[in-house]
Amino acid sequence: MDAKIRLYVEHPLGEAQTVPLDRAQAHYLFGVMRQTVGAQVLLFNGMDGEWRAEVVEVGKRGGTLRCAAQTRALQMPPDLWLCFAPIKKARTDFIVEKATEMGAARIVPMQTDFTNAGRIQRDRLQAHAVEAAEQCGGTFVPEVAELVRFAALLDRWEPARRIMFCDEALVSAPAGVRADPGPWAIFIGPEGGFSDAERARLRAQDHAQAVSLGPRILRADTAAVAALTVWQQALGDWT
Amino acid sequence: MDAKIRLYVEHPLGEAQTVPLDRAQAHYLFGVMRQTVGAQVLLFNGMDGEWRAEVVEVGKRGGTLRCAAQTRALQMPPDLWLCFAPIKKARTDFIVEKATEMGAARIVPMQTDFTNAGRIQRDRLQAHAVEAAEQCGGTFVPEVAELVRFAALLDRWEPARRIMFCDEALVSAPAGVRADPGPWAIFIGPEGGFSDAERARLRAQDHAQAVSLGPRILRADTAAVAALTVWQQALGDWT
Repeated sequence: MDAKIRLYVEHPLGEAQTVPLDRAQAHYLFGVMRQTVGAQVLLFNGMDGEWRAEVVEVGKRGGTLRCAAQTRALQMPPDLWLCFAPIKKARTDFIVEKATEMGAARIVPMQTDFTNAGRIQRDRLQAHAVEAAEQCGGTFVPEVAELVRFAALLDRWEPARRIMFCDEALVSAPAGVRADPGPWAIFIGPEGGFSDAERARLRAQDHAQAVSLGPRILRADTAAVAALTVWQQALGDWT
Repeated sequence: MDAKIRLYVEHPLGEAQTVPLDRAQAHYLFGVMRQTVGAQVLLFNGMDGEWRAEVVEVGKRGGTLRCAAQTRALQMPPDLWLCFAPIKKARTDFIVEKATEMGAARIVPMQTDFTNAGRIQRDRLQAHAVEAAEQCGGTFVPEVAELVRFAALLDRWEPARRIMFCDEALVSAPAGVRADPGPWAIFIGPEGGFSDAERARLRAQDHAQAVSLGPRILRADTAAVAALTVWQQALGDWT
């Protein structure tokens, strides 16, 4: 009765609840993974925790599962955003994957002065977040926001949300974060760092603090994981 | 006079020292990067710090640089090894890249009970470490060791080197590391974790401690960066 396959579905889950599969899910489950009627699968939807479900109907373009029992309660991540400057495609995918594994609640791609990407494929990035949540055993999928300009993001910033920002120019900043509770966001600069104007704007915010990630220059995807680790250890759900 | 290109060379560096380039370096510098006589390049060799050098001779199969001035002293990383189980090729490359950026001194691929890889391409992984060092501004390149069996590695372990081990089964372990000084190694399990026998063997060592990386299951490359962050913050060169 080992149910190793985990699927994210956009459907309510509960005792004896039936869950329809869409075409892509049916293809994956029956075509790729060769599951048949009676197979056990784990489902989550970001709201109702994780459920063990059984395949009750197999089709080429769909199928039906029925929930048997809850296997895990919903575990919401801390109220933490990861705001980052999109880079090359593969590394942007990695950042979304890693932010999901590391427990960010929201992922915000932002366009900075030194960002090359003029657009992102939000749907593709969101699919990466779903896949990472399926893989890492989480019961929550972070939302990937639309690409936003750095200035516009800060113009409408809610001051209750503190900012931890990491930048290659900041080797002299403290290596830790002050453990103020409440909502937070991590800002990761692009390769080349934030511009002087952006750095000045961040430094001028009362609710922002600079954090050093050591004496070497980290690539943006490495910096994202390192910064999430620093934050999770000090303020998050790792302890 | 902006010297952005950084090259690792296996040659002594010093005042007025001339440095021959091999074919691959000449191709990169002159063919790909279009540098000519008089161009400024940064050099490091893992021993003599970083030097600004000038191109004095350009050839198709080689070339010569001459050191002008030291731009950075040698910064050795802490005495920290990263021992990890090789996974799919691209992610193994990432682990080597990230360990270099994060300041590991030695990278040890190890074959565990749940490791699929029976061999590694050590030279290719070493080349990735060189490239990562060139990119991250480090003056040191960690050595990538030959693949070793987990049991053989522990059989000849020097007890003075403490072990921090991270495993998906360890969510109840402390999230931090005890800040004992001295040489250390981080052990990262493969996907699927260490086997029960391996876990028991690690737990039985006085000099080993288990550390949790949070409630979600991290991929091995994510876990490597997270574990290196935990260690660098507590014991390394980040503070």
